[in-house]
Amino acid sequence: MNNLFFYAVPAMGVVGLLYTLLKFSWVSKQPAGNDRMKEISTYIAEGAMAFLKAEWKILGYFVVIVALLLGFMATKNEGSHWSIAISFIIGAVFSATAGYIGMKVATKANVRTAEAAKTSLAKALNVSFTGGAVMGLGVSGLAVLGLGGLFLILKHFFSPDGDASGMLRTIEVLTGFSLGAESIALFARVGGGIYTKAADVGADLVGKVEAGIPEDDPRNPATIADNVGDNVGDVAGMGADLFGSYVATVLATMVLGQEVTGADGSRLVDQFGGLSPILLPMVIAGVGILLSIVGTFFVRISESAGISTQAVQKALNMGNWGSMILTAVACFFLVHHILPASMTLRGAEFTRNGVIGAIAVGLVVGALMSIITEYYTAMGKRPVLSIIRQSATGHATNIIGGLAIGMESTFLPILVLAGGIYGSFACAGLYGVAIAAAGMMATTGMQLAIDAFGPIADNAGGIAEMSELPPDIREKTDVLDAVGNTTAASGKGFAIASAALTSLALFAAFVGVAMPSNQHIDIYKADVLAALFVGGMIPFIFSSLAIRAVGEAAMAMVEEVRRQFRTIPGIMEGTGKPEYDKCVAISTEASLKKMMLPGAITIISPLLIGFILGPEALGGFLAGATVSGVLMGIFQNNAGGAWDNAKKSFEKGVEINGEMYYKKSEPHKASVTGDTVGDPFKDTSGPSMNILIKLMSIVSLVIAPSLALMHKTEASVPATKKIEVSIVNKETVADSNTTVTVNAETKSPNALIEALKKDGLATGNDIKLNINNGIITINGKILSAEESKKYIQLLSTKK
Amino acid sequence: MNNLFFYAVPAMGVVGLLYTLLKFSWVSKQPAGNDRMKEISTYIAEGAMAFLKAEWKILGYFVVIVALLLGFMATKNEGSHWSIAISFIIGAVFSATAGYIGMKVATKANVRTAEAAKTSLAKALNVSFTGGAVMGLGVSGLAVLGLGGLFLILKHFFSPDGDASGMLRTIEVLTGFSLGAESIALFARVGGGIYTKAADVGADLVGKVEAGIPEDDPRNPATIADNVGDNVGDVAGMGADLFGSYVATVLATMVLGQEVTGADGSRLVDQFGGLSPILLPMVIAGVGILLSIVGTFFVRISESAGISTQAVQKALNMGNWGSMILTAVACFFLVHHILPASMTLRGAEFTRNGVIGAIAVGLVVGALMSIITEYYTAMGKRPVLSIIRQSATGHATNIIGGLAIGMESTFLPILVLAGGIYGSFACAGLYGVAIAAAGMMATTGMQLAIDAFGPIADNAGGIAEMSELPPDIREKTDVLDAVGNTTAASGKGFAIASAALTSLALFAAFVGVAMPSNQHIDIYKADVLAALFVGGMIPFIFSSLAIRAVGEAAMAMVEEVRRQFRTIPGIMEGTGKPEYDKCVAISTEASLKKMMLPGAITIISPLLIGFILGPEALGGFLAGATVSGVLMGIFQNNAGGAWDNAKKSFEKGVEINGEMYYKKSEPHKASVTGDTVGDPFKDTSGPSMNILIKLMSIVSLVIAPSLALMHKTEASVPATKKIEVSIVNKETVADSNTTVTVNAETKSPNALIEALKKDGLATGNDIKLNINNGIITINGKILSAEESKKYIQLLSTKK
Repeated sequence: MNNLFFYAVPAMGVVGLLYTLLKFSWVSKQPAGNDRMKEISTYIAEGAMAFLKAEWKILGYFVVIVALLLGFMATKNEGSHWSIAISFIIGAVFSATAGYIGMKVATKANVRTAEAAKTSLAKALNVSFTGGAVMGLGVSGLAVLGLGGLFLILKHFFSPDGDASGMLRTIEVLTGFSLGAESIALFARVGGGIYTKAADVGADLVGKVEAGIPEDDPRNPATIADNVGDNVGDVAGMGADLFGSYVATVLATMVLGQEVTGADGSRLVDQFGGLSPILLPMVIAGVGILLSIVGTFFVRISESAGISTQAVQKALNMGNWGSMILTAVACFFLVHHILPASMTLRGAEFTRNGVIGAIAVGLVVGALMSIITEYYTAMGKRPVLSIIRQSATGHATNIIGGLAIGMESTFLPILVLAGGIYGSFACAGLYGVAIAAAGMMATTGMQLAIDAFGPIADNAGGIAEMSELPPDIREKTDVLDAVGNTTAASGKGFAIASAALTSLALFAAFVGVAMPSNQHIDIYKADVLAALFVGGMIPFIFSSLAIRAVGEAAMAMVEEVRRQFRTIPGIMEGTGKPEYDKCVAISTEASLKKMMLPGAITIISPLLIGFILGPEALGGFLAGATVSGVLMGIFQNNAGGAWDNAKKSFEKGVEINGEMYYKKSEPHKASVTGDTVGDPFKDTSGPSMNILIKLMSIVSLVIAPSLALMHKTEASVPATKKIEVSIVNKETVADSNTTVTVNAETKSPNALIEALKKDGLATGNDIKLNINNGIITINGKILSAEESKKYIQLLSTKK
Repeated sequence: MNNLFFYAVPAMGVVGLLYTLLKFSWVSKQPAGNDRMKEISTYIAEGAMAFLKAEWKILGYFVVIVALLLGFMATKNEGSHWSIAISFIIGAVFSATAGYIGMKVATKANVRTAEAAKTSLAKALNVSFTGGAVMGLGVSGLAVLGLGGLFLILKHFFSPDGDASGMLRTIEVLTGFSLGAESIALFARVGGGIYTKAADVGADLVGKVEAGIPEDDPRNPATIADNVGDNVGDVAGMGADLFGSYVATVLATMVLGQEVTGADGSRLVDQFGGLSPILLPMVIAGVGILLSIVGTFFVRISESAGISTQAVQKALNMGNWGSMILTAVACFFLVHHILPASMTLRGAEFTRNGVIGAIAVGLVVGALMSIITEYYTAMGKRPVLSIIRQSATGHATNIIGGLAIGMESTFLPILVLAGGIYGSFACAGLYGVAIAAAGMMATTGMQLAIDAFGPIADNAGGIAEMSELPPDIREKTDVLDAVGNTTAASGKGFAIASAALTSLALFAAFVGVAMPSNQHIDIYKADVLAALFVGGMIPFIFSSLAIRAVGEAAMAMVEEVRRQFRTIPGIMEGTGKPEYDKCVAISTEASLKKMMLPGAITIISPLLIGFILGPEALGGFLAGATVSGVLMGIFQNNAGGAWDNAKKSFEKGVEINGEMYYKKSEPHKASVTGDTVGDPFKDTSGPSMNILIKLMSIVSLVIAPSLALMHKTEASVPATKKIEVSIVNKETVADSNTTVTVNAETKSPNALIEALKKDGLATGNDIKLNINNGIITINGKILSAEESKKYIQLLSTKK
């Protein structure tokens, strides 16, 4: 066995982390500006840390309880192991660390970006993007190190020679890592999302709308909370989110890879002891780290460049597309080197070239999703222009316009996604669906760097404003911020597509584990169909809770700010000092309180459906939740993005029916309403949909072995069919779902097979059973007449 | 055969129509008020007729083209008949007539209600409710007469002795009737919905918000269009809608009823030649008419009653619950009298008592849905109060609050619905699901009377305002209008539940016809799953088109009204006459133009999926569309209803944080924004979801025989399974999806069965085939050795 590649995976993770460390210290060494700037950035950093600590405290209880439950459940199931609890804790800790790294660097980079903007746009971009890159590579480094390292350790204990049942156990325990990562991600995303938008909406409603002071004005008591929010939501929340996604995607491919066999169901022959399909996604992720680092070198603009969004956008595009194209090329060679020429998964054969095709499908889907999302949310394009036009007739038509655009924007992405499912499946079966997602996610390091740089620039602008720096500083940070908004939007399109494919891969993995002998999710059955409805409803109730939490917390914020304006003497003149900490406390408390219920729904509902209605109904539930979650995610992200940019368009003035309108005009006010409604859509509930659908699939996958035990017999009861054929011949092969006629009586072979399994005469799923004149042959072994008789009696009469 | 019941069905339809005629002439005889009132009501009636005529002209082309296509397709398929084209046209004409009757009586009853309000609230209720009842009984009378009469005629030609294949054809042709009804319903609902809301929103935005004149002020040029809208949307549109729903529900039950057999698959033995399961839903519908008429007698308030909503609400509740309870009792006796003790559908046995249980489940689901919907939209309850509170902080939080309530409101209804699916299936299998819906819809006459009385009262108020009648008249009509809003909301909850159950019954019928030998919709397959996503997207794009159409048409309306205010001298002083007809024309044109695309999507998308991807993928598509359609329907209806009543609450004043707010306050303005956004939600796209999901199912059912022909072989290819059992014995029975091993080679029996069918040796689905030492026995008939050999050669080698 060629072990080098297995060790290379965590090593590449370490490379990512080394890069992170290096660049982190570089950022720290940059000048942090004057005392006022330092003071403000300290407020922000402290507020953010206070939130993270409070969040971790609550999540600590959650992690311990779930770990105990997991460990206990695992001891009841021979396919699992108590160490899944450890694996879960590591996943949770790594996920929290990913968020922490991001937040730490972001709260350093923000003030240094503002300071750098004094020199030039190029320098400001360099600092802010490097901050983003620290986070991006930190997240992907941790993910690859965690997965790759844990895999090596578990394999050493459970499956030193790579045998199938040990490998199944290895992967099952590894699922705990992903569960830990994804559940922390959910809470971080929802909690952070509520925090940031409550502060943002609250600050805007009183500050901009009522008091008429600019954004980030230091007189506004909610302004520090607003800037803290950018860090805990858009940085720490997103970091944990993408960490979870990344891990889930790679894991889903590994789960399916573990099932891949040679053409006739025999063990796969390759240079990695049959483990190449498991190895591939990890190696792709690792190489993705290296290529993301390479990609960061492309993100540069010349010192002499003017203050233009185009130059910045171009630099980021270079980095993004550059690392993506490099990844595509690398995948081609990796697949050729690692995989054997042909493989089989669940009876469907596929080739190495098919896998390359599937990765290509994944990259094309990702690229198309980004482009479509950008179209729907970019300034100057038809969707945003239509919202601007509808702002002319007031708040209501602006809202109607945005909602309509959001709903419309599901059309193309869903067609692309459906095509992607169909295409990647056609290329390489279920493994193709999973590897397509893994290919898309390979450049997560780069993606995240680009995503995270936006909030850093946003914060830099806030600090510039609050420190009363000259307006040209703000102008430069605004350019960075504007580009950050566009990349954030297209990043969301990318993320939801990969989440959908990952969920489907996890779904396939779940079906394989939970229903080994009956791999169907038949929505023609009443319970499965009912579960499909219930699953579809979950994203609605989740969104409802998330956006209402923002609305209510924002209202509390508004009232607090109004109170301070009323009661603190001299606050509007700048002589009285606002109580920033009161507002920070409101956001912190509200977000932690309100993240519980949506989180609980996500984790508990699959458990209820699975244990009460069984694995097939749970399959229906997952399908319903995935479809509805993807739709709601796209709808909310794009509506929010379009509203945001419709509002931003007024800053430079827009023409409606031949008249020009600017800030403070009536149409602009209407557009602010849309933007405010869009805030929780695009930054709280919309992006949570990704995690929601993946986390529910992972929860299902974790409980799958238990469900398989509980519902074994039920799952293999055949559906009634109408045409019956009876054939007598020397060798009649039927499948286990078939009833057979013995002595004119119709019988079911299920109980017989169970007994054979229990007695150790048959294991796993590949069983060849033959009964010939009262003699049983099982997987080639012939039983004695007496023994055979004992088992044949178990053929149960059909009802 | 007891034919009396068969003739009783259309006879009961005639009773409904006679009632309609009688009451129509009563309404016409009521005094129509002074000249000004007559003038205004003539404007409204003419505007409404103009719209209907323009709409019919367009739909005329559509009907002719589709009829030709249907007729042509039917000739290619022996299970159908060209007369389906006629059946389709009759359905379309009946549906249009249903809308016409409603509109005709509504435009008479409106002004007469205003006049009656001069006398007393009791009289005004009597006139407006009688108007509603004319429409309700007219619709249900037409439906029962059409279905019952057509069934008798078709049965006479195709299946005089009630044999199964002839009956299949009868029902297939009858499906055309439902297709005609439902497709006209879709256009009427969408077109009418766009019309009414474009006018309403447009009139409000300029009139109430900009010019500060009250609703229905005669100086507002859009006010006539607004009142016309109430008639074409809320009356004619809803009439056609419920006509379609009602027919689809009864038909779905008949389709499944046609498949019901005795316990061992033999023809059912009952007193109706085995047709009792087909007869039952028609009889229930017919008896529902009689009991709805009885129910109308309960709707009375005393002349001495004060002007209170409670009294009116109580009277309507009496009528509604009265006829529903009577129907439940009647169903009990009807089922006992008509059905045999036990039956079988697709291998699942169920009993007469099970059917009664299923109807009970349906009625409970309907009642619960009404109650839940009322809770979410009624004044003074938590949801509406939360929106009011969120109006205090502005437009945006009001919108966020309403959206959150709408999303939350899917939770309980979906659980009830899922329980209903599970429960009715558990009671009586698929037939149970269908009959549950039929039971719910039995009192459509009454439901519709209650629904239609609202817009009549609304119109009456408008006429009172425009004719400058004393304010106490308006006060009385406002009471009626307020009750009408509540009943409309709970009626929508009822309608979406019945639509969901009906769609599922149609879905089951579709699966039976399109995939007779492989009744599974397995979302574990990539193409089915991809189709599930695409199906889920349809309600989003449909809603987007519908609400955007309203937004754009409203904008055109706003601009026209602004122009008139600007250019017509003396218009604001009441000396210049507004050009009402210009506004009517804008609404008419916009609605007709914008209803095309959503309608086309609904009809064409199932065709594309079905013919390109096959019946199983179409099944996935339908499931996705149904789940997402039900969710979007509930979300939009309830959000819209809650916003509406939040706004209405300000009329009497609301308390927020200890302060009282009234009309014209800032929070009230925010609530007007919510109401305006909610208008297209609750009256255009929300209610269209019902028709959308049913129409797509019906389209699929109509093409099902063609799909079955095209995809016959594909559908019966078995999925690969892992456990294989081979048993050799004297009598081995396997099903056709099984591969068999002959001489050590694995073979598929499908081609052999096809050949036997083609040669007339086997028909239908119940085939018993036995191959014993080279001799074939088919359904008891033994073939010669030579003949057997010929067929056995057809056992095809498995790939």
